[in-house]
Amino acid sequence: MSGPGLEQRLLLQLEIDQLNAAYCAALDERRFDEWPEFFMEEGRYKVQARENFERNLPLALIALESKGMMKDRVYGVTQTIYHAPYYTRHVVGPARVLGEEQGLVRAQANYAVFRTRPGDSSEVYNVGRYIDEIVRTEGGLRFASRTCVYDSEMVLNSLIYPV
Amino acid sequence: MSGPGLEQRLLLQLEIDQLNAAYCAALDERRFDEWPEFFMEEGRYKVQARENFERNLPLALIALESKGMMKDRVYGVTQTIYHAPYYTRHVVGPARVLGEEQGLVRAQANYAVFRTRPGDSSEVYNVGRYIDEIVRTEGGLRFASRTCVYDSEMVLNSLIYPV
Amino acid sequence: MSGPGLEQRLLLQLEIDQLNAAYCAALDERRFDEWPEFFMEEGRYKVQARENFERNLPLALIALESKGMMKDRVYGVTQTIYHAPYYTRHVVGPARVLGEEQGLVRAQANYAVFRTRPGDSSEVYNVGRYIDEIVRTEGGLRFASRTCVYDSEMVLNSLIYPV
Repeated sequence: MSGPGLEQRLLLQLEIDQLNAAYCAALDERRFDEWPEFFMEEGRYKVQARENFERNLPLALIALESKGMMKDRVYGVTQTIYHAPYYTRHVVGPARVLGEEQGLVRAQANYAVFRTRPGDSSEVYNVGRYIDEIVRTEGGLRFASRTCVYDSEMVLNSLIYPV
Repeated sequence: MSGPGLEQRLLLQLEIDQLNAAYCAALDERRFDEWPEFFMEEGRYKVQARENFERNLPLALIALESKGMMKDRVYGVTQTIYHAPYYTRHVVGPARVLGEEQGLVRAQANYAVFRTRPGDSSEVYNVGRYIDEIVRTEGGLRFASRTCVYDSEMVLNSLIYPV
Repeated sequence: MSGPGLEQRLLLQLEIDQLNAAYCAALDERRFDEWPEFFMEEGRYKVQARENFERNLPLALIALESKGMMKDRVYGVTQTIYHAPYYTRHVVGPARVLGEEQGLVRAQANYAVFRTRPGDSSEVYNVGRYIDEIVRTEGGLRFASRTCVYDSEMVLNSLIYPV
């Protein structure tokens, strides 16, 4: 493999890994207002337990079906919900780029999110897999859909910020 | 650096990171039957404590010397061993590609495996370093040998699934 | 995007990720003497709590302002400080390459460091963000400055080795 096909493949991998890194940086640096901007206008965002995901059950912890719902969520999280503050830190491996059909790129990546509460040590918070559909726009790559499938159902009563 | 040499280097890095990501996905998604297929027919797989590895001592937790032995291990793990179930989640950084000699690519990568037992929170399970020898085949990259050198000897009485 | 511009971008990403991987490998494999060699002669290295970093406060856990100070630190850590031994394991995601000005490349990456004490299980030790200024030299990329901004102030009374 060489030439334009290889260049396209390398570029797509680069851009998806940079998309993930920028997404995580926005969340970890608490620039929550920027979070919906990683999605298409009709983008979907779901946080779902692995057991439900694997059985095709509909129950999800969070399920948002437009950028407007995401902005609403951000407003709630930053302005109205009373909750104990915590920092997050995402570590994500290089994404698997699984294919491209009709302008939708399918990609997945394993993530680990660490949480740090004030005065406490850092701890494993939420680990799982991003399952993504990504669209190329003039402004760069955007998520048509991101599903965060997490391994543990514990701790999640306190999941406030997006994963 | 530019031209074909650069392209080859970029492609090799891409393929090794994708190999690691696919390997981890197979394990984390419990497609254990696919695990031996990441290896050559005479492939070797070893899980060894760092202390033994660094002193060149032979003792290893798991040492398999062919794809047949790996299939046997998978059979044991999925069909015959009685053990408490758990999920794994691998997070692996970009691999270090250290060189290529006589068709063998040497690469290493740091890994963290998180474990989630039913009804429990996710926890650090096994962290360490993959030390790999990789061969290019018609079906893509395969491990001639993968050694998982782990930092802690604890918890490992319950190491059931491959790392 | 294609041609030389794309090639340069892909190569820079590759080299920065390899720099991070080599840096982490040197630390995790306890080749501490090599650690200062990742920096320019006048390189700076700082380990700072997130709260101080975000408020632009000067207080830092470690602040070294030349390769000489780093060598001195390594000497202290390996020869003179009495401390309980531990292994480290770094897992770092693909770096964000944020720009290049006047020969300085700005890049950032999230890191997780796991610690393993003898006879104990591995645990989350220090998570945070590398904020880097990188220079291209004849010997490859070097840090003009690396700031490790960590999320938790706990455990750090025992931070001995560089992060």
